[in-house]
Amino acid sequence: MKIRSVMQAMPILDWGRRYDGAMLRNDLIAAVIVTIMLIPQSLAYAMLAGLPPEAGIYASILPIILYAVFGTSSALAVGPVAIVSLMTAAAVGQVAQTGTAGYAVAALTLAALSGVILLAMGVFRLGFLANFLSHPVIAGFISASGILIAVGQVKHLLGVSASGDTLPAMLMSLGQHLGQVNMQTLVIGVAATGFLFWVRRGLKPALMRAGLSQGAATIATRAGPVAAVVLTTLAVWGLGMDVKVVGTVPQSLPPLTLPSVDPALIRTLLVPALLISVIGFVESISVAQTLAAKRRQRINPDQELIGLGAANLGAAFTGGYPVTGGFSRSVVNFDAGAETPAAGAFTAIGLAVAAVALTPLVHYLPNATLAATIIVAVLSLVDLRILRHAWACSRADFAAVAVTMVLTLTLGVETGVSAGVMLSVALHLYNTSRPHIAEVGLVPGTQHFRNILRYDVTTHPALLTIRIDESLYFANARMLEDRVLDRVAGDAAIRDVVLMCSAVNSVDLSALETLHALNARLADMDVRLHLSEVKGPVTDRLSHSPLARDLTGQIFRSQWDAVAALTPAICQSAARAT
Amino acid sequence: MKIRSVMQAMPILDWGRRYDGAMLRNDLIAAVIVTIMLIPQSLAYAMLAGLPPEAGIYASILPIILYAVFGTSSALAVGPVAIVSLMTAAAVGQVAQTGTAGYAVAALTLAALSGVILLAMGVFRLGFLANFLSHPVIAGFISASGILIAVGQVKHLLGVSASGDTLPAMLMSLGQHLGQVNMQTLVIGVAATGFLFWVRRGLKPALMRAGLSQGAATIATRAGPVAAVVLTTLAVWGLGMDVKVVGTVPQSLPPLTLPSVDPALIRTLLVPALLISVIGFVESISVAQTLAAKRRQRINPDQELIGLGAANLGAAFTGGYPVTGGFSRSVVNFDAGAETPAAGAFTAIGLAVAAVALTPLVHYLPNATLAATIIVAVLSLVDLRILRHAWACSRADFAAVAVTMVLTLTLGVETGVSAGVMLSVALHLYNTSRPHIAEVGLVPGTQHFRNILRYDVTTHPALLTIRIDESLYFANARMLEDRVLDRVAGDAAIRDVVLMCSAVNSVDLSALETLHALNARLADMDVRLHLSEVKGPVTDRLSHSPLARDLTGQIFRSQWDAVAALTPAICQSAARAT
Repeated sequence: MKIRSVMQAMPILDWGRRYDGAMLRNDLIAAVIVTIMLIPQSLAYAMLAGLPPEAGIYASILPIILYAVFGTSSALAVGPVAIVSLMTAAAVGQVAQTGTAGYAVAALTLAALSGVILLAMGVFRLGFLANFLSHPVIAGFISASGILIAVGQVKHLLGVSASGDTLPAMLMSLGQHLGQVNMQTLVIGVAATGFLFWVRRGLKPALMRAGLSQGAATIATRAGPVAAVVLTTLAVWGLGMDVKVVGTVPQSLPPLTLPSVDPALIRTLLVPALLISVIGFVESISVAQTLAAKRRQRINPDQELIGLGAANLGAAFTGGYPVTGGFSRSVVNFDAGAETPAAGAFTAIGLAVAAVALTPLVHYLPNATLAATIIVAVLSLVDLRILRHAWACSRADFAAVAVTMVLTLTLGVETGVSAGVMLSVALHLYNTSRPHIAEVGLVPGTQHFRNILRYDVTTHPALLTIRIDESLYFANARMLEDRVLDRVAGDAAIRDVVLMCSAVNSVDLSALETLHALNARLADMDVRLHLSEVKGPVTDRLSHSPLARDLTGQIFRSQWDAVAALTPAICQSAARAT
Repeated sequence: MKIRSVMQAMPILDWGRRYDGAMLRNDLIAAVIVTIMLIPQSLAYAMLAGLPPEAGIYASILPIILYAVFGTSSALAVGPVAIVSLMTAAAVGQVAQTGTAGYAVAALTLAALSGVILLAMGVFRLGFLANFLSHPVIAGFISASGILIAVGQVKHLLGVSASGDTLPAMLMSLGQHLGQVNMQTLVIGVAATGFLFWVRRGLKPALMRAGLSQGAATIATRAGPVAAVVLTTLAVWGLGMDVKVVGTVPQSLPPLTLPSVDPALIRTLLVPALLISVIGFVESISVAQTLAAKRRQRINPDQELIGLGAANLGAAFTGGYPVTGGFSRSVVNFDAGAETPAAGAFTAIGLAVAAVALTPLVHYLPNATLAATIIVAVLSLVDLRILRHAWACSRADFAAVAVTMVLTLTLGVETGVSAGVMLSVALHLYNTSRPHIAEVGLVPGTQHFRNILRYDVTTHPALLTIRIDESLYFANARMLEDRVLDRVAGDAAIRDVVLMCSAVNSVDLSALETLHALNARLADMDVRLHLSEVKGPVTDRLSHSPLARDLTGQIFRSQWDAVAALTPAICQSAARAT
């Protein structure tokens, strides 16, 4: 028992015992491919987060190893990702200036807070909280973030120093700087962007037509940024071009760093850290589940929280910033054949070698190339079709997408996602607070009861049957009461009311109290209240409530039983009809 | 059409045309009885609100008339009530000192804001917002407020100047002042309290035994405070006792007053005004519905909002403070035979006469007597049995009651009710986020499908049938996905999964997306996904979603059809069994 729980807490003890030579070979090949792809990506995302380039590499070393020890997905690759990098820039930008030591420490602190939050969510099994990020909110947020990131990188393509955290501010600042465009930078930027788009759109289909498998074509395509980096770096170095470059990057293993324990800083970063944790978890788990299903494997969400929490704490103490499971790196890892989390550990070794040995090679790498890789990567996140899908589903879902998107673009990522979550919850409550309520009658020749407005059904003037198509709780019970009282007050012939509860999955105390009041008010009008088709959990709660004692009518097993007992004439005529 | 809508907006045009001599007589009698009862009650509630005594009378004059014009209840009596008076004291106490001109202006402003909020809720049909005050929150809040009000009045019984807005602060302050008790005040206070309790508990049964009807006995009992006022005023005047008395009250009709338009004051009072509006509306509508049902009448909630809004605006411009429909005054009005809102108008005339002619008579009325009337009135609001009822229903409901009660007592009325509402919503979402999910099989010899854990049912190793007992939405769809994927990943024999949707009343976009992802992940495992017993609204949304196109399996009308198509052997053996 004890061994099993240790194995659950450290999945490496499980797959580690089954590890063999074939697995090792597959994991090593995957690691080499992923390492090559990650070098430019890590530099680019560090730039997006407003951090020095090496922070992106450091954030991909210890975090990967810690995830390999504690995580449950065999293919997930943990490290810096675009959206979390953007959110880091937004959060840290509030407390420090880019390029200062305070900025780097705030990023470490943000990673540490995320790590603690994720670990706590894992230990207390709070992963379900992520479910409150509804699909419209996530989709709207991701698309809007993709737009924000892409527009934010345009300044690097133009070689100007524009600023702004929101779309209007960015566009206005870019407009003001249009006169200062650096033409050499623009040439490199446009060439790199065009090349990368061609690699995505044109090369992959061409390779697949040439006979490569889809997986191999995907890997080749993902190497596109590496080619762009090599070509533009050589161009800048060889032609002595005057463009902004990455410059000197320290040749070093990840340093030991300490996050801040300043209470004021922690208070400021707490909400951003919570949002980064939850959004990073949602992104990571969605990638991990997709890849696991392809091999009929399962991942454990609570254990994933612990894996991601450990990875973020690792980033905080080794010069990184918040990390999560990334989509593109994980897919490449999977397609390249990674079989166990050991592939991640080998990737970490590869990146450590790169950090020590290869950093001088990126001195002449132009920022414009990194910006081009970011732009091409994030534009695949922007999918405005969600607006059409949401509209087709419901106005509430459309409103949630649109509000999240507009507020993310105009007021920033934190406001956008927070407002989206609150609006989703409010609209859900609003919708369930006005349930569908139908007056029903007997379909002749059957024992079925249907809406009197849609079907030709038999009713009796002394009997009102109301079907509620929703669980009853505080927000909707009084609407039912109003409907029933309105109907009964306007029709003196009614002697019995039956509430048909076939769609009522649960009731709360408010609903019981409302039914109790309805029962008393109907009694004042000399009308009896009955219930029919009551489900098990509802029956249990009813039986412990004062309503069970005071109900003027009966609880019928089925609506047919109710009609048979209250207005037998209808059932007899129905029986004659058959 | 137009005439009808004017009549709906001003119900007086409806009942006014049918008014006759018998109605006039009944309304006049009711008005006299209510006026006598309201004089001490109005003085007492003004003291509770921290306002001069005449404010309570003024708040009962124009508001009653405006409600008579715009309201829909024939018996509701509008004016100051205990809980709204307490909330007024709490809100206004934040911005001004009792007894200052600023305090009175802030109270007028609070009434004006409440009036505007109520009118807006009525015009925009937002009355449903009141439904988000769940029964546990209302019950917990009312009981806790009753305790706060009663304990807050003890200082008047003791004749000390204790302070405090929360129960611990009040008790501590009372303890510190125990050495300064005024014995004459204590004698009057204890005597009045004892007398009033006896009137409630002993006199009413005695009168009913003596042959009075329950209505007449209720009226006689409600006159108890008048008797206490007369006796103690005579005692103080006649014996020259040294106790705090009401003192000089201006002899005047309600003055014309103006609420403040200071933006800072309005911002501070906005949230309290919103809470006062919603809580006042809930109290009022509940009384009005109870009384209307006794005469098989209906009240219109949106029109009630307009009636109460007009009443509060009336209070704001005539020296009053926030008002609502009160329980005790409305019941007396009803029992005394009020037939139309004209009874309220006659009460207003009676109170206007009292304000001009009778105020000198209350000069020697001791504050201790007013405190006694308040204490005896509000202790009937305290009903701790709600804790037991809530516990019997569910832990969530119990938590909502307990948290509302404890926070109201310790942190104040606004915090208590706000936290209660948020907790109710959070617990409701939490409960619906973990729906009951059952694996079901065929009950042999029937076409019914039941939980495999509870019934002896037939299943097939290649077919997994899952029934979800809740509507699917963003907070619970992923839990369903996790359950299905866990089950399928652990059982290689499964080839088909059927989701039985008989209890799914609705789906949102998130649920559709999750089902879409589940479908794709099951397809990766070579498992088909089917749906059965899908309801109309769910079918509509499905048909517009990508899932309809990509579903690997079928949508079956009934679970029996699904089993018959996917594993016909089971149905055949079931048929043989019958």
